[in-house]
Amino acid sequence: MNMIAAVVLIRAVPGDVPALARRIAGIDGVAEVYSVSGEYDLIAIVRVKEYERIAQIVTEEIAQVSGIERTNTLTAFRVYSKQDLERAWDMWD
Amino acid sequence: MNMIAAVVLIRAVPGDVPALARRIAGIDGVAEVYSVSGEYDLIAIVRVKEYERIAQIVTEEIAQVSGIERTNTLTAFRVYSKQDLERAWDMWD
Amino acid sequence: MNMIAAVVLIRAVPGDVPALARRIAGIDGVAEVYSVSGEYDLIAIVRVKEYERIAQIVTEEIAQVSGIERTNTLTAFRVYSKQDLERAWDMWD
Amino acid sequence: MNMIAAVVLIRAVPGDVPALARRIAGIDGVAEVYSVSGEYDLIAIVRVKEYERIAQIVTEEIAQVSGIERTNTLTAFRVYSKQDLERAWDMWD
Amino acid sequence: MNMIAAVVLIRAVPGDVPALARRIAGIDGVAEVYSVSGEYDLIAIVRVKEYERIAQIVTEEIAQVSGIERTNTLTAFRVYSKQDLERAWDMWD
Amino acid sequence: MNMIAAVVLIRAVPGDVPALARRIAGIDGVAEVYSVSGEYDLIAIVRVKEYERIAQIVTEEIAQVSGIERTNTLTAFRVYSKQDLERAWDMWD
Amino acid sequence: MNMIAAVVLIRAVPGDVPALARRIAGIDGVAEVYSVSGEYDLIAIVRVKEYERIAQIVTEEIAQVSGIERTNTLTAFRVYSKQDLERAWDMWD
Amino acid sequence: MNMIAAVVLIRAVPGDVPALARRIAGIDGVAEVYSVSGEYDLIAIVRVKEYERIAQIVTEEIAQVSGIERTNTLTAFRVYSKQDLERAWDMWD
Amino acid sequence: MNMIAAVVLIRAVPGDVPALARRIAGIDGVAEVYSVSGEYDLIAIVRVKEYERIAQIVTEEIAQVSGIERTNTLTAFRVYSKQDLERAWDMWD
Amino acid sequence: MNMIAAVVLIRAVPGDVPALARRIAGIDGVAEVYSVSGEYDLIAIVRVKEYERIAQIVTEEIAQVSGIERTNTLTAFRVYSKQDLERAWDMWD
Repeated sequence: MNMIAAVVLIRAVPGDVPALARRIAGIDGVAEVYSVSGEYDLIAIVRVKEYERIAQIVTEEIAQVSGIERTNTLTAFRVYSKQDLERAWDMWD
Repeated sequence: MNMIAAVVLIRAVPGDVPALARRIAGIDGVAEVYSVSGEYDLIAIVRVKEYERIAQIVTEEIAQVSGIERTNTLTAFRVYSKQDLERAWDMWD
Repeated sequence: MNMIAAVVLIRAVPGDVPALARRIAGIDGVAEVYSVSGEYDLIAIVRVKEYERIAQIVTEEIAQVSGIERTNTLTAFRVYSKQDLERAWDMWD
Repeated sequence: MNMIAAVVLIRAVPGDVPALARRIAGIDGVAEVYSVSGEYDLIAIVRVKEYERIAQIVTEEIAQVSGIERTNTLTAFRVYSKQDLERAWDMWD
Repeated sequence: MNMIAAVVLIRAVPGDVPALARRIAGIDGVAEVYSVSGEYDLIAIVRVKEYERIAQIVTEEIAQVSGIERTNTLTAFRVYSKQDLERAWDMWD
Repeated sequence: MNMIAAVVLIRAVPGDVPALARRIAGIDGVAEVYSVSGEYDLIAIVRVKEYERIAQIVTEEIAQVSGIERTNTLTAFRVYSKQDLERAWDMWD
Repeated sequence: MNMIAAVVLIRAVPGDVPALARRIAGIDGVAEVYSVSGEYDLIAIVRVKEYERIAQIVTEEIAQVSGIERTNTLTAFRVYSKQDLERAWDMWD
Repeated sequence: MNMIAAVVLIRAVPGDVPALARRIAGIDGVAEVYSVSGEYDLIAIVRVKEYERIAQIVTEEIAQVSGIERTNTLTAFRVYSKQDLERAWDMWD
Repeated sequence: MNMIAAVVLIRAVPGDVPALARRIAGIDGVAEVYSVSGEYDLIAIVRVKEYERIAQIVTEEIAQVSGIERTNTLTAFRVYSKQDLERAWDMWD
Repeated sequence: MNMIAAVVLIRAVPGDVPALARRIAGIDGVAEVYSVSGEYDLIAIVRVKEYERIAQIVTEEIAQVSGIERTNTLTAFRVYSKQDLERAWDMWD
C-alpha cells in the first residue's frame, strides 16, 4: 500500500536548486522531489507507512537541510484515485 | 517513464470536499487527488505522457468542475528520486 | 494517551460567532472551540485516538457547518509538555 | 478550572524545531507545544489562572527564546465544549 | 484605573462609513471609534473593567452590526504611558 | 480637547518588547503604548494639538527608535463617542 | 500654499474605469484622478486647505461613489520638492 | 521597432479560460495571450506603437471583457535582448 | 502641459525617512516627494515630458538611492481633472 | 515555430536593475527581458523549442545570477493570437 502522507512545499534560498533537490531526495521516506514553477521552488512528496515518521522527516530531517528559506507542509488526509472511486479507498484500510 | 507534469493546488468553495475530490479524480490524466491540511483543500497530481495534455486538463477540464474557488498550478520541471540519484535522472537524459 | 491531532483555524461569515462555535463544539471528536482575537474568529481543537478520524471531521463534518467562510487546518506532528520533557514523550514512544 | 487564555502561533528560524519546542514548553504557564503542519512551525497553548500572566509569558518569556522568527498570539475569549453546551460555560464563571 | 482591553480594526463594506461608526460607538463598553486612513476604515477602542465583557462586545455585539466586512481584534496585554514610566505600571500591580 | 491624531501599529524585532514600549512611550506626544496580541507587537496612540506634529513624531522620532522592524501608521480622520453622538463631534470643532 | 493632504489608492469593481474616474474627479477637493498600472486601478490626489475636509471627502464622498471595491488612503505628512530643499519647507514653517 | 508596452496579468472568474483568452486576443493591440500556470490564469502581451493606446486597451477594452476577476498591468520601461546587448538598445535610441 | 507619468510607492529601511525624502526629491524629474501614513513611507511623483525618461529615473536613479527597502511604481495612463471633464483631456493631446 | 514556454517574474535586490537585466538577457533561450512597473522589477520571456530546456534555464541559469531576490515562473500552456483565432492554434500542433 503506497501511502502519500505529506506534500512539503519548499522555497529555496536563491542558488543551486537542483543540488538542494538531490539532498532532500536522499532522505529516507522522501519518495520524490520535483522542481516546479510558481512561488515555491521544490515539492517533496513524503510517503511512509506510519504517520508518526512524518514529524521526524519534516521537523528534523528536511528542516535541517541547508539552503531552505521556508517550508509549508500539507499533510494528506485521504487519497482519491480512479481505481478507488467505487470503494472510496482511504489511506488506512 | 512515470512523468508527473503538474501539481494543482485547489481551494474549494466551502461544502462537500470529498465529492469534489471524486469529480476531479475521475478526469483522465489526473493520477490522484489528496484532501490536505493547510490553506488549500485538495491537491491534484496530473501525470501525462505529453505536456500538451496539461493545458487541456488544467484550463478546460479541472477549471470547469463546479465547487472550485481558486486553483494554483505548479508545473513540474524535473523529478529527483533516490533510484535516480546516481544517474541524476532528469527528463532530458 | 491525550492526543491532539489537529488545530483548525476558522474564519466565520460575519454574524453570530458564538452560535457557530456551539455547532462545531457539538461534533464528535472536537474537544474544545475557542473564540479568539486576531484574523481568525474561532479555533477548534480536534482530539481523536486514530488519525483517520481527522479527515472525516475536517473535510466532511466541520466543512459542512453553515456560517464558515474559510478554514486552515494545522495537523499536529508531536506534542511537548513539561511532564514529558525528561522522557521527551512523543506520540510514537 | 483549567483556563486556556492564549494560542501562540510560532514561525521558527529554519533549524532545530524540536529543540525550540522543548525550550518553550519549559516556560511556566505554557501547557503544551505542538509541532504542526502548515505555514507555522509550532503552536504554544498558554493556560494560566489570571489573564495578566499572559503579557509576561508572551511579550517577555516566549519573545526572548532564541530561534523564533515571528509569533502571532490569539487570545481566547470564550471556550465552548460538549460538557458545557447546556450551560454555555464561559471561562470566568 | 482606565484599562484599554482591546483595539478592534474594522474593514467596512463600501458605503456610509460615518453611520457605521456611530452604530458601533453606541455599544456599551466601546469608548471611542475613529475613522482612519489605511487598509482599515474604522478603529474601535474597547475599554471595560473586567476582561470577560470583551468576548461579548467583540464576538456578539460588534460582530452583528450590519455593514462590517471583516474585523481584526488586538487585545491589550499591558499599557505603558509617561506617568507610569517610573512605577512601570502594568495591569497586575 | 483631547485629540487622537494617529494610531501607529508596530512590529518589533524579536527581543525585549516591554523595553521597546517604554522607549516609545517616553516620546513627547505619544499618549500611551499597548503591547497587544496579533500580528503587531505594539500600538502607539499619538495625541497632539496640531496635526503637523504627527510627521515629526512618526517619521523622525518613532522611526528612529532601535528595535522596530516595521510601522504602519493609521491617521485618525474623525472620532465618534457616546457623548458626542448627538452633535457628531468631530476632532476640530 | 498648494497642500497635498491625501493620496487615495482605489481598486475598482471590474467595469468602466474611465467613467468611475470622472465621477471621482468631479468631487470638490479632488485635484486629479489618474488611471494607473499595477494592483490599483485609480489614484485620487486630494488637495484641500484644512485637513478636516479630508474626512468628509474620503469617508463620505469618495466612499459612496458606486463602482469602488476597496480604497486605501495614504495621508501626506510632509512634502519635499526641489524648490523647497533649501528652506526644507514643511507644513509647519 | 517591436515595442512591448505592457504585460497584463489576468485572474479569470472560474470557468471557460480558453474562451476568455480568445476574446482578449481579438482586441486590436493585443499581440498574444498565454494561458499560464501559477496564481494568474492568463497573460496578455500588449504591443502598440504609441503609449497612449495602452490606456484605452487596458482600462477600457480588456477591463470590460466579461469573465475577468482581477487584472494587474505591468508597463514595460525598457527591453533588453541579445541582439541589442552591444548597442544596449533601449526604447529611446 | 504638466504631465504626471508615474507614482512611486517607497518603503524605507527603518531610519531617517526625511533625509531619504530629500535625496529622492533632488533627482531631476521627481516633482514632489511626500512622507505618508500607511504601509509605505514615501510617495514620489515623477513628472516628465517624454515617457522614456521614467525608466531611467525609476530603474536607475531612484533604485540606487541608499535607504530604500522596496519600491512599487504605478505608471499613469490618463489623468482626469475637473477642468478637463468636458474634453476628457488625456495626457498626450 | 516561435514557442513562448515561460514568463519569469523577477524581484531584484535593490541596486542596478539594468545591469541585472543585461546579465539575464545574455542567457541562451531568454528571448527578451523587460524592466517593468509594479511589484516585480523584471520579466524574462523564455522561448525554447523543447520544454525540457526550461528547467535548466529557470532552476540553474537564471536562479544563479547574482542580484535576484525572488523569482516566480509562469509556464505557458497555450498561446492565442489573432492569426490563430480561427484554427485555435496551440503551441504543439
